[in-house]
Amino acid sequence: MIHKIHLKTRKRDEMLDITYEVEKLLVQENVQEGLVVIYSSHTTAGITINENADPDVQKDFLQRLDEIYPWNLASDRHFEGNSAAHLKTSTVGASQTVIVHHGKLLLGRWQGIYFCEFDGPRERICYVKILM
Amino acid sequence: MIHKIHLKTRKRDEMLDITYEVEKLLVQENVQEGLVVIYSSHTTAGITINENADPDVQKDFLQRLDEIYPWNLASDRHFEGNSAAHLKTSTVGASQTVIVHHGKLLLGRWQGIYFCEFDGPRERICYVKILM
Amino acid sequence: MIHKIHLKTRKRDEMLDITYEVEKLLVQENVQEGLVVIYSSHTTAGITINENADPDVQKDFLQRLDEIYPWNLASDRHFEGNSAAHLKTSTVGASQTVIVHHGKLLLGRWQGIYFCEFDGPRERICYVKILM
Repeated sequence: MIHKIHLKTRKRDEMLDITYEVEKLLVQENVQEGLVVIYSSHTTAGITINENADPDVQKDFLQRLDEIYPWNLASDRHFEGNSAAHLKTSTVGASQTVIVHHGKLLLGRWQGIYFCEFDGPRERICYVKILM
Repeated sequence: MIHKIHLKTRKRDEMLDITYEVEKLLVQENVQEGLVVIYSSHTTAGITINENADPDVQKDFLQRLDEIYPWNLASDRHFEGNSAAHLKTSTVGASQTVIVHHGKLLLGRWQGIYFCEFDGPRERICYVKILM
Repeated sequence: MIHKIHLKTRKRDEMLDITYEVEKLLVQENVQEGLVVIYSSHTTAGITINENADPDVQKDFLQRLDEIYPWNLASDRHFEGNSAAHLKTSTVGASQTVIVHHGKLLLGRWQGIYFCEFDGPRERICYVKILM
């Protein structure tokens, strides 16, 4: 089973919590045990799993990544000027794999699944593949 | 099949080799071919695959990550003060996927599976999901 | 089904596009729906998914990683002197998981699968596991 999640991001650096969208698909398909792969089909947006409680974690997360991978770097050659976004994407990863147990995502208490936009605003697609 | 590995970490930055614990589960379940997902259910501890020979690799690994993501950063807003640990976790990843072949983890000669503690000492849980 | 891709890298920092090699295996095995895990069995070479259009993205990618993880660092202890390569490998990851749909890799328009050599030139092996 493959599902598409359509997203609209609002700015360059943004983390969208898609945990609920993924969980809805498990209920819809009545999945009890298995694996879920959440996959970004973009090269300037990735997927990560991180804290879902204090939104300041996301702020620090995006700001620190921006300091490590600054947007403008004189040595960059890529004509689009978004090399930083490509690096951030490979750092967090194009996908995450989550275990399904007793019909639920086996996430830790503070874990959420985030779509990480590093070059928005854009219309984005995230694929969800469920393996039973 | 899902298994839990209980871990006790002893300090903030520490890499625990859990390869043997994962391999024991394959023997216990008599898995010959498949995939194993090793998953950290924490937002300040991740999983990585890296060298299992010279322990100095782990020292350099943790020290360099600490330089890139310094513990104290004046611009951090997260009240717990452990934003660096959240960034390190997303950099190495919440999970790793390893192939099982002929009843063994298909690791390279120098590869080991590491639970990476970035905010200990703590009691931690690592889930292992086997797919056949 | 497990397949081996043999690679010969030509220098320390190099990204080899292996998308076509992986797609050939899907055709050969007549896989219509499933998952593919592309796995590097090395600790100084990883796998990432990134842009396959402008080769300058790869140049910027490798150069920026080299600035974050400089090859020579006085504080490194590992006798082989390649700690930077170990860090780059864990940053991009030892493996990538890609969805297979209608007999093809479900990659985005600009996505390619790259074997990332961080310590060549060397002879390398990449495993491909297909799950249906």
